[in-house]
Amino acid sequence: MRDTLEQARTRYVDAGGVRFGYRRLGPETGIPLVLLQHFTGTIDAWDPAVVNALAADRPVIAFNNAGVGTTSGETPDTIERQAADAEAFIVALGLEEIDLLGFSLGGFLAQVMAARGTLAVRRLILTGTAPRGGEEHLLEVVAAAFARKARDVRLPLFFTPSDASQVAGEAFIDRAGLRREDRDPDRGDAVSNPQAQAIIRWCAETDPDYGTLRAIRQPTLIVHGSDDTMFPPINAYDMSRRMSDATLIIYPDSGHGALFQYPATFVSHARIFLDA
Amino acid sequence: MRDTLEQARTRYVDAGGVRFGYRRLGPETGIPLVLLQHFTGTIDAWDPAVVNALAADRPVIAFNNAGVGTTSGETPDTIERQAADAEAFIVALGLEEIDLLGFSLGGFLAQVMAARGTLAVRRLILTGTAPRGGEEHLLEVVAAAFARKARDVRLPLFFTPSDASQVAGEAFIDRAGLRREDRDPDRGDAVSNPQAQAIIRWCAETDPDYGTLRAIRQPTLIVHGSDDTMFPPINAYDMSRRMSDATLIIYPDSGHGALFQYPATFVSHARIFLDA
Repeated sequence: MRDTLEQARTRYVDAGGVRFGYRRLGPETGIPLVLLQHFTGTIDAWDPAVVNALAADRPVIAFNNAGVGTTSGETPDTIERQAADAEAFIVALGLEEIDLLGFSLGGFLAQVMAARGTLAVRRLILTGTAPRGGEEHLLEVVAAAFARKARDVRLPLFFTPSDASQVAGEAFIDRAGLRREDRDPDRGDAVSNPQAQAIIRWCAETDPDYGTLRAIRQPTLIVHGSDDTMFPPINAYDMSRRMSDATLIIYPDSGHGALFQYPATFVSHARIFLDA
Repeated sequence: MRDTLEQARTRYVDAGGVRFGYRRLGPETGIPLVLLQHFTGTIDAWDPAVVNALAADRPVIAFNNAGVGTTSGETPDTIERQAADAEAFIVALGLEEIDLLGFSLGGFLAQVMAARGTLAVRRLILTGTAPRGGEEHLLEVVAAAFARKARDVRLPLFFTPSDASQVAGEAFIDRAGLRREDRDPDRGDAVSNPQAQAIIRWCAETDPDYGTLRAIRQPTLIVHGSDDTMFPPINAYDMSRRMSDATLIIYPDSGHGALFQYPATFVSHARIFLDA
C-alpha cells in the first residue's frame, strides 16, 4: 500500500545550508509534480484528497520552503529568493525534469521558476494566483477572515459564504487535520511577515510588457475560484490572455481554495492537463 | 456495434407541421444530450470525434432545426422562434429531461431554452457563444474567411492561423467529410439570411440586468477558444460572471471551433461536467 500525505514520514534533504522537510508520494518513476504552497502553509495544509489522488499515477513531492514548518533557515522576503530556495531543494533531490503546481504565493514562485528556466519545468498548474503586478487584497482579506472567528480561518479565507462552499470547506478542514502526529510546526511571524512582504511586493511591481508571463513557454493550466477575494479571478483571465499556452478554468461559487472545494474535479482536470 | 454520426441513418419526426431530420446515437437509456448547431451548420457539420465519443456513455441527438438541411419548414429570423422550433422537436421525440450542448448560434438557443424552462433542461454546455447583448463580429469575420479562399471556409473561421491550429482544423475537416452518402443538403441563403439576422439581433439587444443569464439556474459549462474572432472570449468570461453556476474553460491558441481543435480534451471536460 502506498503512502498518503497524512501518513507519510517527513524526510529531509540538505541544500545550501538549509535542511528541507518534504514528503514524497506516488510511484518511483514518472515526472514528479512538485507542490508550491500558499501563504503561511506547510505540507500539512495541502488537501489529502487532492494530493493522494494526484499521486495515484505520478510522483508528488510536497515540501516546506526555507524557514517554513519542518525546514530550517529563514524565509526570504522576495519571490525571487523563495523561488531560488525551492530550486535548491529540487536540485538536491536530483530531479531532472519536473511539473509544478503552485497555489497562491506558490503560484508566484512557479511563474518565476518556469520563466527563468534554471530547472527543466515541463508543465505548470497555477491556482488562486496572480501575475506580477496583479490585483491582491491579502491584508484586508486575511484581517476580515480572522475577525470572523471561524472554527478555522481557512473557512472564510478559502471558501465562499454559500452553504455548499462552507460544507465543502468543513470537509477540507477535516481532511487536512487527519494527520495527528509529526505535524509541521507553525513558525508564526517569522514566516508570515516575510511571505506577506513578498506577496505585496510582487503585486506592487509593474510588468508592463508581461515579461514574466511571456517568458513562460510551458503549457500551463490556470485554475481559479469565481469568488476568490484575495486574488480576484480577473487575474486568472488576464494571465491566460498573456501566456502563450494557457488553459483557463474557473469554478463556480468558489473562493481562494477552489481546488480544495472541488478536489475530484480539480484532480481530473489536472490529470487531463498533465497527461495531454 | 453502435451507430456513428457519419454512418447513422437520418431519422424523421413531425412536429408543428415541420418534418425534422435527426440522428440518435449512443445507448437507449440515460439523459439525452441534444446538440444545437452553429450558423448554417447541419448535422454533418458536427465533429464525429466529439459526437461519437460523447455518445459512448449517453444518448446524443443531433438534428437540423426548421428549414435547415434535411428538415422542412422555414428558418425563423429570431432566436426565440428558433428555440421554439427546437423545443417542438424535442417534445415530439418524447424526451422528458435533457442536457443541451449549444455551439455559437446554438448556444443562444440553449440559453433561451434553459432560461424559460419550457422543457426540463438539466445541464448546459455553451461553446463559442455570447450572451444577449454580447460582442459579435459575424459578418466581418465570415467575409474575411471567405476571402481567404481556403480549402474549407471553416479553416480560417474556426481555427487560428498557427500551424498547430490549422493542422487540427484539417483533421476536423477530414472527419466531418467522412460521411459520403445521404449528407444533409445546404439550403443556402434561405438559412444563412434569417440565421444571420437572428444572431445580429441577439447581440444588438440590451439586457442590462442580465435577465436571461440570471434566469438560468442549471449547472453550466462554458467552453471557449482563446482567439475566437467571431465571439471574443470576453463574452465567455462575462457570462460566467453573471451566471449562478457556471464553470468556465478557455483553451489556448484556439478559435471559434475550439471544441473541434481539442476533441479529446473537450469530451473529457464535457463528461466530467455532465457526470458531476
